[in-house]
Amino acid sequence: MSTQLTTRRILLQSAMSVGALGALAQSITAADPVAKKIQVKDGAVILFQGDSITDAGRNIGAAEPNAEKALGYGYAMLAAGKLLRAYPQQKPLIFNRGISGHKVPDLAERWEKDTIALKPDILSILIGVNDLWHTFAFGSKYKGTVADYESGLRALLESTLKALPTVQIVLCEPFTTRTSDEFKPLAEYRAVVQKIAQEKSFLLVPFQAAFDEAIKVAPASFWAPDGIHPSPAGHDLMAEVWRKAVGI
Amino acid sequence: MSTQLTTRRILLQSAMSVGALGALAQSITAADPVAKKIQVKDGAVILFQGDSITDAGRNIGAAEPNAEKALGYGYAMLAAGKLLRAYPQQKPLIFNRGISGHKVPDLAERWEKDTIALKPDILSILIGVNDLWHTFAFGSKYKGTVADYESGLRALLESTLKALPTVQIVLCEPFTTRTSDEFKPLAEYRAVVQKIAQEKSFLLVPFQAAFDEAIKVAPASFWAPDGIHPSPAGHDLMAEVWRKAVGI
Repeated sequence: MSTQLTTRRILLQSAMSVGALGALAQSITAADPVAKKIQVKDGAVILFQGDSITDAGRNIGAAEPNAEKALGYGYAMLAAGKLLRAYPQQKPLIFNRGISGHKVPDLAERWEKDTIALKPDILSILIGVNDLWHTFAFGSKYKGTVADYESGLRALLESTLKALPTVQIVLCEPFTTRTSDEFKPLAEYRAVVQKIAQEKSFLLVPFQAAFDEAIKVAPASFWAPDGIHPSPAGHDLMAEVWRKAVGI
Repeated sequence: MSTQLTTRRILLQSAMSVGALGALAQSITAADPVAKKIQVKDGAVILFQGDSITDAGRNIGAAEPNAEKALGYGYAMLAAGKLLRAYPQQKPLIFNRGISGHKVPDLAERWEKDTIALKPDILSILIGVNDLWHTFAFGSKYKGTVADYESGLRALLESTLKALPTVQIVLCEPFTTRTSDEFKPLAEYRAVVQKIAQEKSFLLVPFQAAFDEAIKVAPASFWAPDGIHPSPAGHDLMAEVWRKAVGI
C-alpha cells in the first residue's frame, strides 16, 4: 500500500466512529506495507545466486524449484516461502544456486549453466564477502581487488541483460558484523553494489544497515555467530529485509 | 500493540500535519499486530514437538538449540526465526524434537527424554494426523481410536504440567488438505485438541482453518503436495498462523 493510500485511509477514519477504529487499525496493520516493486507473472522463475549465505546447506543435487532441500536453510528459502505465499496464483518457480565459498569469478565460471540457462524473470544476487575475505584468509590465495570485483560483477550483469533483456535484477549488499580492520574494505565492495544498483535502477537490498541496527539490540554473535554466516535469527532478518526491498 | 493503543495513536494523528502521516503509518504498520500471548523470559526454552511436519528434515543427530540443521526446513524453523528475532534480548533456546511418523503413543515413549528433560518454558505440540492415517495406511497396523488419542494426549499433558507446572502449552490442530472419506474423521481428532485447549486455557493454533482458506486461492497441492506434508509455501503459512496464535 502506498503512503498516499495509507494517508487517505487514515484521513478517512476521522469521519468514522471511535468503535470502528480498531477494525481500521487492523486493516492498516494487515495491509501490504510497501508498494510492490517486482512483477511476478504466472510461472515466473525466481533465482537466488550467491555464496554460502545463499547456499545455506541446500542439497546441491536437488535441482528442482520450490523444494525445501533445494532451497537450503537460509534467507533464500525463507524468502521463497514469502514469495510463494504472496503469489499463490502465479505459482513462481524458485531456485537457489548459491554455492559456498564463491566469489564473482566463481559465479562467472558457472553463470551460463546456473543462471542464464534457468532463464530467470527475477534474479537476486548476493556476492562479495569472499571476494574480500579470501584475499587475507584461507591461505590468502585470491588476489582480486575491489576493481576486479566491480568489473567482474558488471560483466556478469551485462551478459545477463544481453541474454535476458527483461530480467528483473535484485542486488544484495555484501555484509559482515566483523569490525576488524581486515573487513573494513567491505564497505568499498558494498559501494560498488550500491553504485551499480543506482545506475541501472536495480532493486538494492540493504543488508548491512539491517545488521548494523540489529547489533544494537543483541550481540553480533546472535545474528551471525562467525560474523559472516547468519544464525536463524539473522536469516529471518535477511528474508524480511529482502521482502521489503522487493516490495512483497 | 493493543487495539486501544492503536486507536489512541490514530486519534493523536488528527492533530498532526499531513506530512507526518506517512511516518505514522509506518509506525502503525511496523507495530505488533496482536497482543503478546506467550511470555518469553531470558533464556526461555521453547520446544516444538510432533511428527514429520514438525521434524521437516531436521538432522536428528543435531541436538543443540537455535541451529539450522537441528530445526529442519519447516514451520518450526520458520517460527524459531520469528521468535529469535522478536526476542533478541531474551535469547530463547529453541529446540525441535518432532519425529517423522509419530503418533501420541510414540510421543509418550520418548516424552521424558525428549520433552520433560529439556524443561521447556513453552511447549508447542502438533500431533494427530498419523494417529488417524496409520489406521488405514502403511499396512493399517495401528489400531488406536480417537478416544485413545484423547486419553493419550491428556496423559501427556498432565504429566507435563505435573513436572513443569509453569510450562506454557501451545496446542496445534492436526490438519490435512485431503478430502477423501478416510480423512474425514480427522475433524474428531481436531475437536479433541480444541476441547482440551479450551478446558485448560492453552493457546490453540488453527492450522486447518488456515489451509481451508489457502486452498481457495491455490490448489491444495500448492500448499501440501501430498495433502499432509506442507510445501515451503505451506510451512510459511503455518509459521505465520503459529506466530499470530502465540502473539509474537
